Amino acid sequence: MSDFSDLKQACYEANMELNALGLVVYTFGNVSAVDRARGVFAIKPSGVPYADLRPADMVVLDYENNIIEGVLKPSSDTKTHAWLYKTWPGIGGIAHTHATYSVAWAQAQRDIPILGTTHADHLTEDIPCAAPMQDHLIAGDYEHHTGIQITDCFRERRLDYAEVPMVLVGNHGPFSWGKDAAQAVYHSKVLEEIAQMAFLTLQINPEAPRLKEALIRKHYERKHGPGAYYGQ
Amino acid sequence: MSDFSDLKQACYEANMELNALGLVVYTFGNVSAVDRARGVFAIKPSGVPYADLRPADMVVLDYENNIIEGVLKPSSDTKTHAWLYKTWPGIGGIAHTHATYSVAWAQAQRDIPILGTTHADHLTEDIPCAAPMQDHLIAGDYEHHTGIQITDCFRERRLDYAEVPMVLVGNHGPFSWGKDAAQAVYHSKVLEEIAQMAFLTLQINPEAPRLKEALIRKHYERKHGPGAYYGQ
Amino acid sequence: MSDFSDLKQACYEANMELNALGLVVYTFGNVSAVDRARGVFAIKPSGVPYADLRPADMVVLDYENNIIEGVLKPSSDTKTHAWLYKTWPGIGGIAHTHATYSVAWAQAQRDIPILGTTHADHLTEDIPCAAPMQDHLIAGDYEHHTGIQITDCFRERRLDYAEVPMVLVGNHGPFSWGKDAAQAVYHSKVLEEIAQMAFLTLQINPEAPRLKEALIRKHYERKHGPGAYYGQ
Amino acid sequence: MSDFSDLKQACYEANMELNALGLVVYTFGNVSAVDRARGVFAIKPSGVPYADLRPADMVVLDYENNIIEGVLKPSSDTKTHAWLYKTWPGIGGIAHTHATYSVAWAQAQRDIPILGTTHADHLTEDIPCAAPMQDHLIAGDYEHHTGIQITDCFRERRLDYAEVPMVLVGNHGPFSWGKDAAQAVYHSKVLEEIAQMAFLTLQINPEAPRLKEALIRKHYERKHGPGAYYGQ
Repeated sequence: MSDFSDLKQACYEANMELNALGLVVYTFGNVSAVDRARGVFAIKPSGVPYADLRPADMVVLDYENNIIEGVLKPSSDTKTHAWLYKTWPGIGGIAHTHATYSVAWAQAQRDIPILGTTHADHLTEDIPCAAPMQDHLIAGDYEHHTGIQITDCFRERRLDYAEVPMVLVGNHGPFSWGKDAAQAVYHSKVLEEIAQMAFLTLQINPEAPRLKEALIRKHYERKHGPGAYYGQ
Repeated sequence: MSDFSDLKQACYEANMELNALGLVVYTFGNVSAVDRARGVFAIKPSGVPYADLRPADMVVLDYENNIIEGVLKPSSDTKTHAWLYKTWPGIGGIAHTHATYSVAWAQAQRDIPILGTTHADHLTEDIPCAAPMQDHLIAGDYEHHTGIQITDCFRERRLDYAEVPMVLVGNHGPFSWGKDAAQAVYHSKVLEEIAQMAFLTLQINPEAPRLKEALIRKHYERKHGPGAYYGQ
Repeated sequence: MSDFSDLKQACYEANMELNALGLVVYTFGNVSAVDRARGVFAIKPSGVPYADLRPADMVVLDYENNIIEGVLKPSSDTKTHAWLYKTWPGIGGIAHTHATYSVAWAQAQRDIPILGTTHADHLTEDIPCAAPMQDHLIAGDYEHHTGIQITDCFRERRLDYAEVPMVLVGNHGPFSWGKDAAQAVYHSKVLEEIAQMAFLTLQINPEAPRLKEALIRKHYERKHGPGAYYGQ
Repeated sequence: MSDFSDLKQACYEANMELNALGLVVYTFGNVSAVDRARGVFAIKPSGVPYADLRPADMVVLDYENNIIEGVLKPSSDTKTHAWLYKTWPGIGGIAHTHATYSVAWAQAQRDIPILGTTHADHLTEDIPCAAPMQDHLIAGDYEHHTGIQITDCFRERRLDYAEVPMVLVGNHGPFSWGKDAAQAVYHSKVLEEIAQMAFLTLQINPEAPRLKEALIRKHYERKHGPGAYYGQ
């Protein structure tokens, strides 16, 4: 009997939800869930089809990438997750996909501009696209450096990971996070919706203006912060 | 036992249909149904997933936004619905979504031009996109002002809400209405189809002309008015 | 017991297939099937949802639009079907949809150019878009004139309806036909696929050339005519 | 009892998977599987709907297109498959589709540029689009020449079929291959995803740069070669 049954179950369910939402084909994605009290996270094993996945297959590691429990190899992106958990103490889950519209913006190396209230309901900033990595970092510990690439992007742009729960890694694809693994998956889906809407908006009107500040504030505050009045 | 069982049931079914038609992800939408004789309407509760929704969860309010029955908080857009019911006595139901193509046109701040008979089968005008709200109104009673934004748009453009059963709120998304909640949802779906067709048409031919007046009249009158001969 | 049970059954099945293929929303489409020996055709009733449709609901008419059997009103497009059956003796079924990409080309008032072998497997010509109707014809017997609009287009362009089993009616949408109602529906689906592929091709490369004549001939003759070697 | 039961079963399953993945409509596609020890391959029969297909229907041929077992006519593209098996000894299965985005690039006569890591996870080169065939070859043994068209393209561009498991045949559509039929189908799906992502990327940013060499190498080597660390 595993000491990490609940953590692995939550991780498993979030991975299956990623698939059910149509955000991944084959094994092109992964979700992890963290247990802050014990300093470990569970993550999907590498390259295992969703149809074959079981909760017990989840791999448990610490923030230094040491395997604590599990017989399968963890996701090849594990070091990126570990770095984000280590650097950003407030996140409880991380999701990574190759969802179509999110990847298209990442490949275009463009931030997704905030154009409407669907975006502002979730964050007040353009969704950042982190610049591609320098060659010497790629050749080194690549997945670890992908984590640094993300946190550097946020530091340089003075973004708060608690307010901007998603990023595009240039040329690669999206990562998102949240209070737990389920919310990380939710943010992956929201990002894909926003990415498609922004694409279409700029096709219809290449001069479509950025959402004005008063609307950004209003919609975000409807859902977040002390005056929030959305939900039960 | 509720005095409003039938109203709440109709409201519930229309909300579930909105979801079944693929017009919403998560809780990004809401439908209401009105009982004109009693001066009340039922609306979806705020932020409750469709899978968990039950007819009894619908919230009943009067046109001044007083809760008449219900334990959950009503949709955050409730005041917009209330204003529309109060101002336009002929509507029986209202739907609001963040459907992809409809939102794209709203974010592009463009009216959807009437380009073909699918559009003319339902209305004879371009689908209006209401201009974004002024900042002092956003900061105030926002959802109430969204209702005013819609009715002002119709008054200024001399549009008849009985003939144009849908609108895009600039930067936000679509609202639609009808003789009942089911027809409001129907108009949301029709709007999304028209929005996609118009997008594709202008991609193929940016100079595609507006539908000529004789065809607009003919198609509309096939389905509406004294000489209508569509349907049973 | 109906004398037209088989005809009505074939018509019913073709209508249901149109819906199953995702070519229609609500009641935006119709299929008919003809019995040449008896000079009658069966068609979908007007405005009846697919979920409620039964084989017995199909309406049987002659080519002069006299109802031979049926209690419901036939499709509002019935006179278009009747004219085509009367004018083109070789067709056994007709389908009409408002499928998204087909409608977009019709609204753009553009022929769909032959750009690849998927198109050439089915026809050797660009898919014609008939010019919008003159105003005095619209004001008159509109659906009858829509039929004439289609046959005039084929006569003026010297197209053979046996070789070009589909057309776009400008500003409106597609009609297709075939040896029977099932093949008419098949051609509606093929048209929608070709319409989407051609749209995407020209987005990728606005200068994409027309398919060369040798390939057009080769692919068409693989599937049609004396030397055909496709299928069993 | 067939001597080729296993081969035919594998071929059947791969064809059904092609359909389940949404890569084909009607019968617009085919997959084959080879038995290198016996010098034969099994392929889908021509024009048989997927719903009616049974493992026993697969047709077995040698590389000279002689039927070894089977009562149905093999796919009209059989000679293309035979040539590829004969010329490229390392492939174990081949798939051909008319998938929408792949066909669009083929019709546009454009290579699909390598723009991101989804592409680099599978191959390090742009996906080649073979130039349309010369007229005298089309008029001759067309499907045989399609095979030559593909292998000539690879020879002229100095591409290795083991590293580039897919191609677009100009004006026609994609072929893909792999160690077995299942992997050939996998590559068809991957190609369609890459084709859609590249289309969208260039719509968002027509100047989107090619993926840099260091990232191409890194992602490919994560999944392939001696240092691969993806999967179990």
